[in-house]
Amino acid sequence: MSYRSVKLIKRPELEITEDVFNIVTQDIPTPAEGEVLVKLSHLSLDPAMRGWMSPDENSYIPPVKLGDTMRASGIGEVVASNNEKFPVGARVMGLMGLTEYAISDGNGLNVIPKELPAEAILSVIALPGITAYHGVFEVLKPEADQTLIVTAAAGSVGSLVGQMAKNLGLTVVGVAGSDEKCQWLTKELGFDHAINYKDADFVEQLTQATPNGIDLFFENTGGAAQGPIFERMNPHGRIAVCGLIADYQTAEPSPGPSWIGIIKRRLSIQGFTMPDHFHRIPEYGQALGAMLGKGELKYRAHVIEGIESATTGINLLFEGKNTGKLIVKL
Amino acid sequence: MSYRSVKLIKRPELEITEDVFNIVTQDIPTPAEGEVLVKLSHLSLDPAMRGWMSPDENSYIPPVKLGDTMRASGIGEVVASNNEKFPVGARVMGLMGLTEYAISDGNGLNVIPKELPAEAILSVIALPGITAYHGVFEVLKPEADQTLIVTAAAGSVGSLVGQMAKNLGLTVVGVAGSDEKCQWLTKELGFDHAINYKDADFVEQLTQATPNGIDLFFENTGGAAQGPIFERMNPHGRIAVCGLIADYQTAEPSPGPSWIGIIKRRLSIQGFTMPDHFHRIPEYGQALGAMLGKGELKYRAHVIEGIESATTGINLLFEGKNTGKLIVKL
Repeated sequence: MSYRSVKLIKRPELEITEDVFNIVTQDIPTPAEGEVLVKLSHLSLDPAMRGWMSPDENSYIPPVKLGDTMRASGIGEVVASNNEKFPVGARVMGLMGLTEYAISDGNGLNVIPKELPAEAILSVIALPGITAYHGVFEVLKPEADQTLIVTAAAGSVGSLVGQMAKNLGLTVVGVAGSDEKCQWLTKELGFDHAINYKDADFVEQLTQATPNGIDLFFENTGGAAQGPIFERMNPHGRIAVCGLIADYQTAEPSPGPSWIGIIKRRLSIQGFTMPDHFHRIPEYGQALGAMLGKGELKYRAHVIEGIESATTGINLLFEGKNTGKLIVKL
Repeated sequence: MSYRSVKLIKRPELEITEDVFNIVTQDIPTPAEGEVLVKLSHLSLDPAMRGWMSPDENSYIPPVKLGDTMRASGIGEVVASNNEKFPVGARVMGLMGLTEYAISDGNGLNVIPKELPAEAILSVIALPGITAYHGVFEVLKPEADQTLIVTAAAGSVGSLVGQMAKNLGLTVVGVAGSDEKCQWLTKELGFDHAINYKDADFVEQLTQATPNGIDLFFENTGGAAQGPIFERMNPHGRIAVCGLIADYQTAEPSPGPSWIGIIKRRLSIQGFTMPDHFHRIPEYGQALGAMLGKGELKYRAHVIEGIESATTGINLLFEGKNTGKLIVKL
């Protein structure tokens, strides 16, 4: 019996071209003592994967080695087990890679309930949800009368950030890259305003949508929207820097706002990445599951099929063409 | 009886030219009910004054109005009083402006001990000291095994920041603009390293001085040193943005470091200005007085004489030509 997995064989220059990956077919291995064999059913494609492909000694997580299976999180079922914590039949989630089968020693693997749809888990309780949860509750720490803005607002993280803030009573403004996404944000998710950053009058729309300025800024994109948003920040505002997807594939990243504004407005800016906080996944997962159960968090998944779809499908994220959490169904 | 005061009559374009000020002579007024008349003995010239001259609705403190006495802090003696909290003969400190005499309603005025030299008060217990104290203890929150770097390290704030960090057991690196300043930092103040940012091999010296990277960065200058320092920041590092003196008088401020680094290194960056924290002056002043009494904080004052010296003397700050806290003795 054989399975396929996606190996990283070359580092991307800027864009993720197809030749950085190689799909290899191998025999399905047998788990050693303490190990389990997982058959993956769903893989998650996330913007962070672009960073994992590049060597950078300062990054928060080691880059994927050339020749190794590309790192990715996914959901699967234990089909052979030498580890009593993960019996055969258990549904598990973890960073098992872009692969149809994976061997795991159980480190970083979490058992997840079987009754929830995989799309709900990967869209809400997995990386997008814990990222949104940490950024909102641990970094931004919102108060009910504040105005929060989130970029990539229709993305898997941004859409949850905005909904969490709405549920806390804030005024929420989303920035997205298409009118369809903006309509989803205001009509389905209850955002107060959503603005297409490609509109020629983006700055005017932003000013109108934030008559009291902006207190909290959840930054997912960088790029052209960042400067005008920064100019609307109120004194003592807080910025959570979660992602800069517009800058990941450009040779010259857009300059951040002038630091003089940081002083004049006494801003706090905090960058964060989730591997620092993985030990809190059980706690965050429980909170997210409760919100999901109460119907407080809506999501939409963009599902593509077959492991071979992952190698080109990942670029939907950087082109802004995915509508919802990007998932590969195996 | 008449006195002189310095009025702001024009806003500076970039540099502070002499024609933005006018020295006027007026009759000494009589304090009304609740007011006191203070005869100033020492005025403080601070980089923040440049910001107070420019209109900016987002600034932390209203700009000085054209025609008004230029804002500045100073020390003086109460010579007439209709306010029992400040009897005749009391020594007081406050934002009384560039003037030989001032009327005050007591708001923002603090009584200070008579036995301390005015230079010690303005260099340590006044704005420089409370700024350094707040930045170190409330923003950076140092731990003993960390490496801290401070720019404008020989300045009135920077020199205190470095000494406070040394007293806490940190490795301290100062960046200054002359070899004489660097020698003062290492030989007199006990900094571990001091680097002249004008040296051609600044980056190499910085790398050698920070073999374990930089955990805490107290930023006073902006300019060319900022980028290389940012590149040495360790994961989870913290940056206190106190001032950007290199940028205050340039049309195009130097761009801040790329925001991607903020994510990859999970940095926290916080801008602060002291008017937000003036309510803590009594607490900070007590702590600073205790440090001064124990000989833990050395300072040097750069004293110029006569109120007329203030109008050109303030530029010593922006040219980096002052050696120590810049004070006008009246």
